[in-house]
Amino acid sequence: MRLVRIRHDGTPRWGELDGETVHFTHGLAGGRSGGSTLFDPGTLLAPAEPSKIVCVGRNYLDHIRELGNDSGELPTEPGIFLKGPNALAEPGGTVIRPDWTQNFHFEGELALVIGTCARDLSPETALQHVAGYTCGLDLTARDLQKTDLQWFRAKAADRFCPLGPWLETDLDPADVRVQTRVNGATKQDSRTSHMIFDVPAILSYVSRYVTLEPGDVVLTGTPEGVGPLQSGDTVEVEVEGIGVLSTFIG
Amino acid sequence: MRLVRIRHDGTPRWGELDGETVHFTHGLAGGRSGGSTLFDPGTLLAPAEPSKIVCVGRNYLDHIRELGNDSGELPTEPGIFLKGPNALAEPGGTVIRPDWTQNFHFEGELALVIGTCARDLSPETALQHVAGYTCGLDLTARDLQKTDLQWFRAKAADRFCPLGPWLETDLDPADVRVQTRVNGATKQDSRTSHMIFDVPAILSYVSRYVTLEPGDVVLTGTPEGVGPLQSGDTVEVEVEGIGVLSTFIG
Repeated sequence: MRLVRIRHDGTPRWGELDGETVHFTHGLAGGRSGGSTLFDPGTLLAPAEPSKIVCVGRNYLDHIRELGNDSGELPTEPGIFLKGPNALAEPGGTVIRPDWTQNFHFEGELALVIGTCARDLSPETALQHVAGYTCGLDLTARDLQKTDLQWFRAKAADRFCPLGPWLETDLDPADVRVQTRVNGATKQDSRTSHMIFDVPAILSYVSRYVTLEPGDVVLTGTPEGVGPLQSGDTVEVEVEGIGVLSTFIG
Repeated sequence: MRLVRIRHDGTPRWGELDGETVHFTHGLAGGRSGGSTLFDPGTLLAPAEPSKIVCVGRNYLDHIRELGNDSGELPTEPGIFLKGPNALAEPGGTVIRPDWTQNFHFEGELALVIGTCARDLSPETALQHVAGYTCGLDLTARDLQKTDLQWFRAKAADRFCPLGPWLETDLDPADVRVQTRVNGATKQDSRTSHMIFDVPAILSYVSRYVTLEPGDVVLTGTPEGVGPLQSGDTVEVEVEGIGVLSTFIG
């Protein structure tokens, strides 16, 4: 099932997408509330209302290598960083290239949204707390990642996290293809089976330290092939079984 | 004026504290809504409902030196990192010492809460967006700060940000005393005038990259004197003109 968040009559609404129809629901994980509307992709919003956005860095070996961060040993624990809700941007939206970075990078990723409150999850049951899966674009000021104390400007600035187009509830995240295209040219093309830490391992690890709330977003890391974006570029992140997240760089 | 957030009949409520009486208000920055209750310090909650908690690292020179991070040059820009709302803990509360850190540190700080949406602030007008000031305890897993990719476990774990006891709306943050005591012994004793980046400079810098929302929390950095905490310790952060934030380490 596809869960969408759309702007309808000026108000954000959650719904189930069924063909060309959106059936409104009681929030993210509630059932149908009555009422429906014709689906208009131009009304899509980021499909999450997070208290935090939890991201995994360095989760694909070939990405670690391309950034020159390969110590010869695999990480023994996921490297986690945060974005705030201010980072969300809607599918099909425009993100203005900031004038304070000289190296503005795309990172396409599998993302997920938490459905039920989660603390100290075991890998065996972790996926039960996922409301659905979507595509994430982890925009990154690569130059500031190296110079700043922490990855605040590099990762957490306004609209640095386009997300969507919707949540797919029926996905096995173990082995799906993740691709990123810039102006139609494929830049990243990998599979989630190449993750160093898979989704259950990520959720189990993160939830030992922070309580994951319904609506929270987890970005699972990017594969190799990252690169710079210029104004005028169109970035597409496609995750197999979900769809395409398109973002215009203004 | 002191703004408090309390648990009243099982529900969080904002109010103005006037002597022994709490006059309920319409949220953080709204006026009185009618109704009042006798003030009970045991009902205090962290005085903020943030979308994010923005923190400044290395904002006092003597703290930079004590951690061995002194390069001989002052930072030219504030070093910013994030915690999520999961980090908040109430004044007078207990924080369990995590078993996954061997060096659990206190960092007492001046904190503030945003009152009105803020983007691209100038230092001259930044303080107009502050709803009030309070005491913050930036709990830190010092060992993991050094070993992890980013300061996620080190800074952003559940209840790593006790805050309170209330918001003082009428404070000039330029030069107030900040003290931290552990079991009554003074460990930190400095003044905000020793900050490398003062409060207007912090808010101006941060709001160039992220939109600050009403309720967001900003921690302004800790002075020298940080040190380890053990189970059974009581930490008090006192900021002149505000009050005392007390936290028990369980």
